Amino acid sequence: MAIHIRGIANSKKMLLDDEGIDPGNWRDRFEKSNVDLDLTAFAAHISATYFPHSLIIDCSTSSELAGHYAGWLKNRIHVITPNKKAGTAEYSYYKELMDACLSTGSRFLYETTVGAGLPVIWTLKDLVQTGDHVHRIEGMLSGTLAWLFSTYDGSVPFSTLVRQAKEMGYTEPDPRDDLSGMDVGRKTVILARELGGKIEVADVPIQSLVPESLEGIGLDEFMERLEEIDPIIEQAYRTARSKGEFLRYVGTVDEEGNCEARLGSFGPDHPFSQATGTDNVILFVTDRYRTQPLVIKGPGAGREVTAGGVFSDILRLSSYLGARI
Amino acid sequence: MAIHIRGIANSKKMLLDDEGIDPGNWRDRFEKSNVDLDLTAFAAHISATYFPHSLIIDCSTSSELAGHYAGWLKNRIHVITPNKKAGTAEYSYYKELMDACLSTGSRFLYETTVGAGLPVIWTLKDLVQTGDHVHRIEGMLSGTLAWLFSTYDGSVPFSTLVRQAKEMGYTEPDPRDDLSGMDVGRKTVILARELGGKIEVADVPIQSLVPESLEGIGLDEFMERLEEIDPIIEQAYRTARSKGEFLRYVGTVDEEGNCEARLGSFGPDHPFSQATGTDNVILFVTDRYRTQPLVIKGPGAGREVTAGGVFSDILRLSSYLGARI
Repeated sequence: MAIHIRGIANSKKMLLDDEGIDPGNWRDRFEKSNVDLDLTAFAAHISATYFPHSLIIDCSTSSELAGHYAGWLKNRIHVITPNKKAGTAEYSYYKELMDACLSTGSRFLYETTVGAGLPVIWTLKDLVQTGDHVHRIEGMLSGTLAWLFSTYDGSVPFSTLVRQAKEMGYTEPDPRDDLSGMDVGRKTVILARELGGKIEVADVPIQSLVPESLEGIGLDEFMERLEEIDPIIEQAYRTARSKGEFLRYVGTVDEEGNCEARLGSFGPDHPFSQATGTDNVILFVTDRYRTQPLVIKGPGAGREVTAGGVFSDILRLSSYLGARI
Repeated sequence: MAIHIRGIANSKKMLLDDEGIDPGNWRDRFEKSNVDLDLTAFAAHISATYFPHSLIIDCSTSSELAGHYAGWLKNRIHVITPNKKAGTAEYSYYKELMDACLSTGSRFLYETTVGAGLPVIWTLKDLVQTGDHVHRIEGMLSGTLAWLFSTYDGSVPFSTLVRQAKEMGYTEPDPRDDLSGMDVGRKTVILARELGGKIEVADVPIQSLVPESLEGIGLDEFMERLEEIDPIIEQAYRTARSKGEFLRYVGTVDEEGNCEARLGSFGPDHPFSQATGTDNVILFVTDRYRTQPLVIKGPGAGREVTAGGVFSDILRLSSYLGARI
């Protein structure tokens, strides 16, 4: 199997090469490049007709780039991405992507949009395509929120843990991007659409852990006033513990593809309660896995596992295209 | 995607049809068939040249059938199976199968040989093929032994639970086939070979839970004298509990592909200790998943989940062959 890296781009500039870019020194060459990004030229260069297959890998979080997938797929350029923007775009666009794949044979692979390298999407696709009936998917889908709630035991204020998590690089630069629950909500939509749910992100009830008083203020002020979050969490924690349960932030999808993202409490035997650290945990309750769900657990974020997952998607695509691996 | 069922066979007879056998009434037709099984004729019929692709699915546990895979694969008949006999045959035969796949493009898919429908083999293949370094695989790989040890708490003799498990159909007809650990040992070999281990089943240290005194006697006598197993288990259980640990029967593979199958004890936070019922639990400790392993958990045996897994392999094969699904 021969892979030629024919182009690399960031949001500003690009490096194109007819011979293939050596992954050993791409950074040097890319830094020296002063060609402005031109996505049309980039896609045209990638899909040069003398190569049998073309692939664009989008490792950005850009909505604009995601807006180009449909055009690429229609032009028989495969797309692999950990970018959630296409999978959570308005349903009509998502449908357009799926239809483009069916009509052209192009592949849109996005395993890493949920749980990074964990085999979540493919497991779900396998269940659905082989006729299993999925009753419910539940997941601790945010490593940040997983760490916060598996660490919080009432002894140290929640706000202190948020500051720690930020320092350790566990949170987004603005921790509200994690605490808002939006990331979890988006992931539930990606999963729901695998079940055929015609759901939009805007339809998902998402419980934000950011008090209204802390929305719409600057990041510095937010970090200063972080203690305002503490009473809410402490109250929820005490209620959970009084029932012998544990607090976890969870995304759910029901059998009709309805989604929800919220704080919940779970008994000590529940896989969520047993999760530690930044582990993602995803449960599939189906006809086949009814009394005992199928559970996948492990780090669901991070550069290495995400890169590994993207690489898996490349190999999967290669197999689809006839590679013997 | 059009699937034509062109032949069905058991160990004695077969039913061949040029037009395709309707899955709705195959049983009636098969029962009426009185054509003796002729595997050469069967394979020739399956691979009639006017169909683009040929597949034989072996749902037996036959070593003899597994011995035909190499010939089928060389003749461009794909093979899908939950039968562990080929994956645990002498390494030279296993290698012959893999080489046949690489040279002809035929596919040998056997996801269901470990953990039934759970995504174990593909997850491992993905890790290995994308360059992760697997340090250790540990698994509760027998649903029967999982149930016995997660249920046993010293209050009821182990032998009583074995009798219960037999009545509920959780064990093989002869429970020694489970208690010998051989099934777990075989599964470790299948996993080790994915890591490149040139290991034979005979090389695996396998701890049998069957006392020597109960080996080589008839099934009825074994079931009568089952109590002789109790002191061994009780002793191991007490030792584990005195350390606050839980007893589990586990198969392990190390980074060099060395295997082992034995009773071990695990702390309360270990995923094995938290497993209940007949759940299989498989842990991958790798460079990417080092401090927190990748864990897959769920029922790893049973008709529905195994059939679902075989169906997944059929769809995977179809995708490799160009189906747009």
